[in-house]
Amino acid sequence: MDMAFLGELLTSVADRGRALIGIERFLGGRARPIDRLCEDLLSGRGEASGMALAQAVLEAWQRLDKPGRLAFFNMLQERFGPDHDRLDKAIEAYRKKPDAAAISALHLAAEPRRQELLRRLNLAPEGTPVLVRMREALFEAMETEPDLKAVDVDFRHLFGSWFNRGFLVLRRIDWRTPANVLEKIIRYEAVHEIQGWDDLRRRLEPADRRCFAFFHPQLVDEPLIFVEVALTTGIPGSIDELLGSEREVLPAQRATTAVFYSISNCQEGLRGISFGNFLIKQVAEDLKRELPGLDTFVTLSPVPGFARWLAGIAQEPGDLALTNEERSELARPAGETISLDDGTKARRDKLLGQMMAEYLLRARTSSGRVTDPVARFHLGNGARLERINVGGNLSARGLRESHGVMVNYRYDLDDIETNHEAFATRNTVVASGSVRKLLRPAG
Amino acid sequence: MDMAFLGELLTSVADRGRALIGIERFLGGRARPIDRLCEDLLSGRGEASGMALAQAVLEAWQRLDKPGRLAFFNMLQERFGPDHDRLDKAIEAYRKKPDAAAISALHLAAEPRRQELLRRLNLAPEGTPVLVRMREALFEAMETEPDLKAVDVDFRHLFGSWFNRGFLVLRRIDWRTPANVLEKIIRYEAVHEIQGWDDLRRRLEPADRRCFAFFHPQLVDEPLIFVEVALTTGIPGSIDELLGSEREVLPAQRATTAVFYSISNCQEGLRGISFGNFLIKQVAEDLKRELPGLDTFVTLSPVPGFARWLAGIAQEPGDLALTNEERSELARPAGETISLDDGTKARRDKLLGQMMAEYLLRARTSSGRVTDPVARFHLGNGARLERINVGGNLSARGLRESHGVMVNYRYDLDDIETNHEAFATRNTVVASGSVRKLLRPAG
Amino acid sequence: MDMAFLGELLTSVADRGRALIGIERFLGGRARPIDRLCEDLLSGRGEASGMALAQAVLEAWQRLDKPGRLAFFNMLQERFGPDHDRLDKAIEAYRKKPDAAAISALHLAAEPRRQELLRRLNLAPEGTPVLVRMREALFEAMETEPDLKAVDVDFRHLFGSWFNRGFLVLRRIDWRTPANVLEKIIRYEAVHEIQGWDDLRRRLEPADRRCFAFFHPQLVDEPLIFVEVALTTGIPGSIDELLGSEREVLPAQRATTAVFYSISNCQEGLRGISFGNFLIKQVAEDLKRELPGLDTFVTLSPVPGFARWLAGIAQEPGDLALTNEERSELARPAGETISLDDGTKARRDKLLGQMMAEYLLRARTSSGRVTDPVARFHLGNGARLERINVGGNLSARGLRESHGVMVNYRYDLDDIETNHEAFATRNTVVASGSVRKLLRPAG
Amino acid sequence: MDMAFLGELLTSVADRGRALIGIERFLGGRARPIDRLCEDLLSGRGEASGMALAQAVLEAWQRLDKPGRLAFFNMLQERFGPDHDRLDKAIEAYRKKPDAAAISALHLAAEPRRQELLRRLNLAPEGTPVLVRMREALFEAMETEPDLKAVDVDFRHLFGSWFNRGFLVLRRIDWRTPANVLEKIIRYEAVHEIQGWDDLRRRLEPADRRCFAFFHPQLVDEPLIFVEVALTTGIPGSIDELLGSEREVLPAQRATTAVFYSISNCQEGLRGISFGNFLIKQVAEDLKRELPGLDTFVTLSPVPGFARWLAGIAQEPGDLALTNEERSELARPAGETISLDDGTKARRDKLLGQMMAEYLLRARTSSGRVTDPVARFHLGNGARLERINVGGNLSARGLRESHGVMVNYRYDLDDIETNHEAFATRNTVVASGSVRKLLRPAG
Repeated sequence: MDMAFLGELLTSVADRGRALIGIERFLGGRARPIDRLCEDLLSGRGEASGMALAQAVLEAWQRLDKPGRLAFFNMLQERFGPDHDRLDKAIEAYRKKPDAAAISALHLAAEPRRQELLRRLNLAPEGTPVLVRMREALFEAMETEPDLKAVDVDFRHLFGSWFNRGFLVLRRIDWRTPANVLEKIIRYEAVHEIQGWDDLRRRLEPADRRCFAFFHPQLVDEPLIFVEVALTTGIPGSIDELLGSEREVLPAQRATTAVFYSISNCQEGLRGISFGNFLIKQVAEDLKRELPGLDTFVTLSPVPGFARWLAGIAQEPGDLALTNEERSELARPAGETISLDDGTKARRDKLLGQMMAEYLLRARTSSGRVTDPVARFHLGNGARLERINVGGNLSARGLRESHGVMVNYRYDLDDIETNHEAFATRNTVVASGSVRKLLRPAG
Repeated sequence: MDMAFLGELLTSVADRGRALIGIERFLGGRARPIDRLCEDLLSGRGEASGMALAQAVLEAWQRLDKPGRLAFFNMLQERFGPDHDRLDKAIEAYRKKPDAAAISALHLAAEPRRQELLRRLNLAPEGTPVLVRMREALFEAMETEPDLKAVDVDFRHLFGSWFNRGFLVLRRIDWRTPANVLEKIIRYEAVHEIQGWDDLRRRLEPADRRCFAFFHPQLVDEPLIFVEVALTTGIPGSIDELLGSEREVLPAQRATTAVFYSISNCQEGLRGISFGNFLIKQVAEDLKRELPGLDTFVTLSPVPGFARWLAGIAQEPGDLALTNEERSELARPAGETISLDDGTKARRDKLLGQMMAEYLLRARTSSGRVTDPVARFHLGNGARLERINVGGNLSARGLRESHGVMVNYRYDLDDIETNHEAFATRNTVVASGSVRKLLRPAG
Repeated sequence: MDMAFLGELLTSVADRGRALIGIERFLGGRARPIDRLCEDLLSGRGEASGMALAQAVLEAWQRLDKPGRLAFFNMLQERFGPDHDRLDKAIEAYRKKPDAAAISALHLAAEPRRQELLRRLNLAPEGTPVLVRMREALFEAMETEPDLKAVDVDFRHLFGSWFNRGFLVLRRIDWRTPANVLEKIIRYEAVHEIQGWDDLRRRLEPADRRCFAFFHPQLVDEPLIFVEVALTTGIPGSIDELLGSEREVLPAQRATTAVFYSISNCQEGLRGISFGNFLIKQVAEDLKRELPGLDTFVTLSPVPGFARWLAGIAQEPGDLALTNEERSELARPAGETISLDDGTKARRDKLLGQMMAEYLLRARTSSGRVTDPVARFHLGNGARLERINVGGNLSARGLRESHGVMVNYRYDLDDIETNHEAFATRNTVVASGSVRKLLRPAG
Repeated sequence: MDMAFLGELLTSVADRGRALIGIERFLGGRARPIDRLCEDLLSGRGEASGMALAQAVLEAWQRLDKPGRLAFFNMLQERFGPDHDRLDKAIEAYRKKPDAAAISALHLAAEPRRQELLRRLNLAPEGTPVLVRMREALFEAMETEPDLKAVDVDFRHLFGSWFNRGFLVLRRIDWRTPANVLEKIIRYEAVHEIQGWDDLRRRLEPADRRCFAFFHPQLVDEPLIFVEVALTTGIPGSIDELLGSEREVLPAQRATTAVFYSISNCQEGLRGISFGNFLIKQVAEDLKRELPGLDTFVTLSPVPGFARWLAGIAQEPGDLALTNEERSELARPAGETISLDDGTKARRDKLLGQMMAEYLLRARTSSGRVTDPVARFHLGNGARLERINVGGNLSARGLRESHGVMVNYRYDLDDIETNHEAFATRNTVVASGSVRKLLRPAG
């Protein structure tokens, strides 16, 4: 209940932007170069006038063009690393006496100065969102300057700390959510595109739809990641079942199954800071509490790497004892399959199911990991592979990426840990019996 | 305006506590020892079930008695430091090729594992406040085990990141603030004790009173630091002028001066994470915006080290050319002075003023720092010493600590940086002419 | 969820006070007399400048002394009644043709002009609370001028409309409630006095305590009525069981019984606008939803008229076949009873129980109503008389008013309507068998 | 600041819908007819179970078809008028002794019972919005049954009380407003249609745009009336200047003029309950406070009755000394004028301006009122007619209604009252010199 107090308390955040008396001193007159501003911010001046200096740096940075930003990042890498003398001395001290104090000192000495610089830049009003965009720009710069990866290590370290799950807030998104947040849901949906506001409303307003996002207190209007959920009475096999415009709305109280049919990250600048794991489990728990009738939590997921893998298999089946007919069937372009006769289609569907089981259960990258990225995500979260749905997504993209096949991953809260353990330590893909039965006997 | 959205969004934080399905698995049955739980949390299990595991650790920790907590901290120090092999290899690699990648690797290798452990403990609902209390307990343990300082380095590093000024929220405290926050104001007031709710109301409700605090989104009911302000028409010389029960209330619009008469830190567990600096300046800016008639921002501050220093001077005046009469005057117990005749009192007051100027402008610790801690704080923030007020605080404590003398430090937003610079780099105490005139010519 | 939007939307109400550009035109210079201002407000000027004029009237009214207010109310009665000519014509028209239009016209013509005046006064910022206080002052004036009752009819009519239950908001009061609301709970508690903030906290903070109040959107800081609730495992027989300082706190989930032990009206100016009826039932429903284990909803109530009635009975027992011993026992002062021997005490207690049953079930006022006002309230709400508790309240007041006896009224949601019907139409007091058994056979 | 408390306290309103234990008793089994439910609600049962009974009536009402609703309204008119016997007696008493008490009694006796019925229906959760919709349906029914006007008198009386300006909340609408409110802005805009969400955003998001609406606490998602404002540096003469897609955004701080270019009522069921008057003045005051640089407040308004009036004039010029050429020019269809040569166009424009001045300053209805409804609204609010803009709105509708002419009304806070007075008492249209100069000398 005291959240009202907090809610109101946060209104003052918005006002901070107006507060900065004194910024003109730094920006006015002849501009001080950004590198000098950065040094100032790390110096004693930063202690006296941190907010204004940080704002001056960030405003200057936002005015930089692409080469300017590249130069800025190079500066961070070259001039804001650790103090080498201090580091060498710390190493020496550690070698002589490797006790706790020496390790602390060594750890601190090895910390690049840019970490403290980034922490101080966060003093500026709206500092956090600008720093997130700064990392986005850094990714671009890294494409041509791989050495900048060292700078990204520091961004990532800080963001990992700042965007700790403990600071995130799960929030339902619905038709009463502010429009400036909703437009971001439209923009960031990465799996099944949202076609404008009417389509958005169809995903948010009906009684059998839910959407949840994580937010951070410093990024008020910016969802970090969101998941769209459909409430159903059984595990769906195709995206049309869920999003088709003709379906009848199910009263939420009668639903038995929650289907996570789309998960989208929103902030490129937070790449590698993982939230999806927490999101699905938290939403599952919250839904279970709201709707005790729910007993099944599944995804309806794409398999983005399947078609590419299959094209390779059609060329070199390896252990798979494929007949020539099967090989030519698999080589058939996805688009052609629409006009197949029933018998051919049935044979092809069966073959696709078998190949999908093969792909998800046995295919590995050269480094030994499960090949499919979506599979890695859900299996790594402790889900199991529940069902393969041939013909689950007949959109152009679905056909192109996975010959129209979709799969369900199941989150059973009691098994998550065991499943995760099997996957993480033994690289075992936990799958239902029905999926395992699709596997062909090893040739 | 979108803050309403955020405010509401945060209501879900409060609910997280109820959410933890599965915690029983960790706490039920025979309890798993806390060290095993910590290892689990850092392992793959922690990735699958981080929130529940983190909660299990924190609940177990809260049930520990004092020796148990000591053992826990020792465990953190001994078993959750860095991986020494990895660190040695990183040092080797850095020696061979001290490039950016090697430094990053070295920095990471030198990071004690307990840092990641603390970050994961923060996943638990209410994790942040428990971790703050954990550090409080650590301070206690450090009294007998100084080696635990290495553990505190990691707490401090993390808290510095989490409680970055950019994440704090300034909030006015008034008579409409929730009672559970107000009771903390009563409890934490460290300078001029608040005598219950009626006294509190006298400090909050009148039109010429203000109180502001910093909050963190994860510590909703817990102010981090707060400042009490009186609005006046001139720089006050005594605390009675401000807090006396008979005074007339001044309409805020007519005030010219804002007096910061009490600043109190609330969270012992955040010791060393500095907010006071930002608080005063932010409040000054906010008040200036609300009440454009304000042109003077001063403190009315105690001088806690004066009496002790003076006792020493009375013994050994050093350079100070004190007459014998003066020396015996200074040796007189503070309590006796009430019944002095007017002439003696005037002489004594003059002498106290001179000595106070001497103390604040010239006294230095053995390491060369300004002796008085309150002076260090304000001067370090860029304030200047404005006025010395003999008889400013005639309470028992005021007499005991500083013979009843109080001082004003002045925050002039235009001079803050210069003042800070002078103090930080040249150790110069910036003072008004009237204070400097009190100095005796060097003997 | 869209309540956040509303919550924020309401913040602008608070700002309205500052908004009134133009008020000076009405109040500045030589003051216009309040009666002229009232006429202005009802005229076309009121349409153009209603808010400012209304504020001018209310500010002028608040500065009036007691005779001034009396004159003001007399003015309302004499000069702001209906237009008699118009009324006579409307009567004529109705007599000629008593159709719907004529009735409407008659109703409107009979409406005193002061009703519209009051509606327009409500345009002022903070108008509603001032009008509530105005009615309080009216009550005082009515003591000497009974004719003003006609003015009160209009206040009551309007307040009945404005404070319609549909516009009230039920709100839990707890230790996180703003202090300026809590201080009113302390002030308005009418049944069992609250001894300061610590006592208040004992009634709000423990897990087995609840407090709820009705609020009106225009009286944000002012509860209209509140009820204090104790959660227990059985029907309590004495106030000490509930408020005694030594009791053990019961986890709310284990409670079976909700005891409404104190209901207090807060706004004298809303006398006669009934909320208590709704409050108890709404709280009972809300608690039932929060804590499904609750199956019993009872009060622990005083019987304020008992001692007076009993004193009469001791004099003139009427039908009651009281022995002489009994009569002298009943004449004994309440305070003396503390030192009785066990046998006498048991006899006395039994007699008190019988007399209380007699009083509540059979005593009637001269107009035939149930004598006890608290009994009338709960029985009129549909509760039944459940139990008589001799020795339930041994405070000075409890002894004085009811010889220390308290009673429980029970709210059984299924029987409320039948009970109410019996009471309202047949004047029947519904009581439990155990209470009815206490009745002596009619002499 | 205590608004946070209120905001939160209102969240319980939303929950009321779920609360109604017991509604089944009224709706379950064989349905009780709605007239019996209404009688019950007015009886003692209504006192015991008002909320549930009210909900039962409103749910039954919402299920009625059109003839059912007509029957319902007829029932209200015929069976829920006043008690005639009581009324006749009250008239008698008043005749005998027309004192304050008799008037009160007469007023109450003449009050139709349906007024209390409506007040009790408001007890139901969501009662207020359903009653507003009920009046909408009543308007429809009145088209065929004019006698129902008597019922509307009671609705209007109650709504006038409930929707008193003192209870309304002014709220800014912007791009951060919840989508379910924004969609209503799109739907209800009555003057310059909003073409979907992108168009809406163009009216809300730029720095030189504002939108404000009145809300009532019981109609959270439903604006009652809203006004769209453009900030400019001069009085605009055409709607294209304001809404054209190419315009440059003006920093709000540089604006001197606030243009109210669209005012739309949203709730048909509140027809005749006037808010627009208050809205414009309140918004003008709020904007002035936010942006002190604003010194001009004007509308850019349509003149919906001009073309019709002009068509009459072209036929019968009356006093206007129109030449034949002018008459045929005025008879020319609006659409044709686009291709006129410059000279003809200039002559036509001049003539249109003269005619518009004639229309607004001199045209009167048969009952002597200013003819144009928009003019009546603004002049009645105390605005003055500032400027006539030929070619201000060349949309099909603009041409059809007013030959493309728009006008500005100016709100000068200092003159509002005088202007209103002139208009209200002497029927004088206050206009600027430039407009008056357009008038032809009376023929």
